[in-house]
Amino acid sequence: MRLDIFGIASIPEVRPGDDLAGLIAEAAAREEPLADHDVLVVTQKVVSKAENQLVAIDPSDPLSHKPLVEQESVRILRRRGDLIISETKHGFVCANAGIDLSNVERGQAALLPEDSDRSARRIRDGLRARAGVEVGVIISDTFGRPWRKGLTDVAIGSAGIRPILDLRGAQDALGREMQVTEVAIIDELAGAAELVMGKTENVAVGMIRGVDPAWFGDGSVRDDIVRDAVDDLFR
Amino acid sequence: MRLDIFGIASIPEVRPGDDLAGLIAEAAAREEPLADHDVLVVTQKVVSKAENQLVAIDPSDPLSHKPLVEQESVRILRRRGDLIISETKHGFVCANAGIDLSNVERGQAALLPEDSDRSARRIRDGLRARAGVEVGVIISDTFGRPWRKGLTDVAIGSAGIRPILDLRGAQDALGREMQVTEVAIIDELAGAAELVMGKTENVAVGMIRGVDPAWFGDGSVRDDIVRDAVDDLFR
Repeated sequence: MRLDIFGIASIPEVRPGDDLAGLIAEAAAREEPLADHDVLVVTQKVVSKAENQLVAIDPSDPLSHKPLVEQESVRILRRRGDLIISETKHGFVCANAGIDLSNVERGQAALLPEDSDRSARRIRDGLRARAGVEVGVIISDTFGRPWRKGLTDVAIGSAGIRPILDLRGAQDALGREMQVTEVAIIDELAGAAELVMGKTENVAVGMIRGVDPAWFGDGSVRDDIVRDAVDDLFR
Repeated sequence: MRLDIFGIASIPEVRPGDDLAGLIAEAAAREEPLADHDVLVVTQKVVSKAENQLVAIDPSDPLSHKPLVEQESVRILRRRGDLIISETKHGFVCANAGIDLSNVERGQAALLPEDSDRSARRIRDGLRARAGVEVGVIISDTFGRPWRKGLTDVAIGSAGIRPILDLRGAQDALGREMQVTEVAIIDELAGAAELVMGKTENVAVGMIRGVDPAWFGDGSVRDDIVRDAVDDLFR
């Protein structure tokens, strides 16, 4: 397998109500026409904008989004200073309930999409209708993690691509049954796309070409990636 | 930025004492000659083998590696059944202290390298000496994480590439100062390489071409990625 990863750069500033699949299809047609088995990684920010998940906040108060964090959370895991680590109503554990003030206009905060798997399905269906292609779509966001410094992009929604590659029962190169078995390819793809999108350049969509056709199929972040609290050793 | 990611497939089975940089340089010369600013991601398994971090275990006892897990750990975080999540003496938090039975011979367990940043520096220096190239080297391993199912590859050692891209003070596309600022590019690179290496094919080295030359420089996993216990909200 050999991957070719690049950003789709010519998507205009996204506004509430915009047809995101249409904007992506048009930008891709200008830059690199879409093909079957492409994987498109779309940043949460533009999905939240298109779906009008924007809330007015007081721009003079640096903590004005904090009540929103509590509202979007079902369980607070940790607090330190202004930082809140919580479980969102979608089941994600992240800082500030995924609410973001970067790359939105002053006086606005962007909430996570209501259902990012549904958002991904809409984009996939829209691209099929407009460009006649069967692609995988991942909605990505930037999360921290315990034990390791720095942030990485992970998948918060997906459609058309299997979130986990299950190698249980497969044999390793020496013919022994594998121990490490369930690879979260969807998060590795989201992180790989982040590398070409950057945080300051406003490239909202990353394209990954060359993914094994066997990786495409059913599944969603909600069903396959979000770990139930009862199964989680750190909640 | 546009990334080209592929595996170096012709590295032979690695044995204790092997010159890993030499094996990589020879395989790359056969397949895709190395160039400045390539990033090579090397799986922990072959580093542990070359450095003879192999320990004999009783192959008839499926739990015979458990005493090794306790020996390699400085702090046990969670136990459930046979699973131990611990902090290793290197500062990593992972399952079973990173000890692995896949892709090693029956009757052996592979410990993590003593110091994987040093392992990465040796490979980088070896490639400079043999091929005259300035590359980045990442040693990768497959870790689980809380809250999300599935495993991803992350960096456990590095040389020649900056582990974190620090965007603090940079402005977003709308001219506001960035909130999300410290991107762990080294882990996103390790995960991206995993996609082309697979777990069953025994491709021990992934190559990433096209990385921004500004990302090369000093730093190590130990200094830049491992979070001190005192700063960690989940330990």
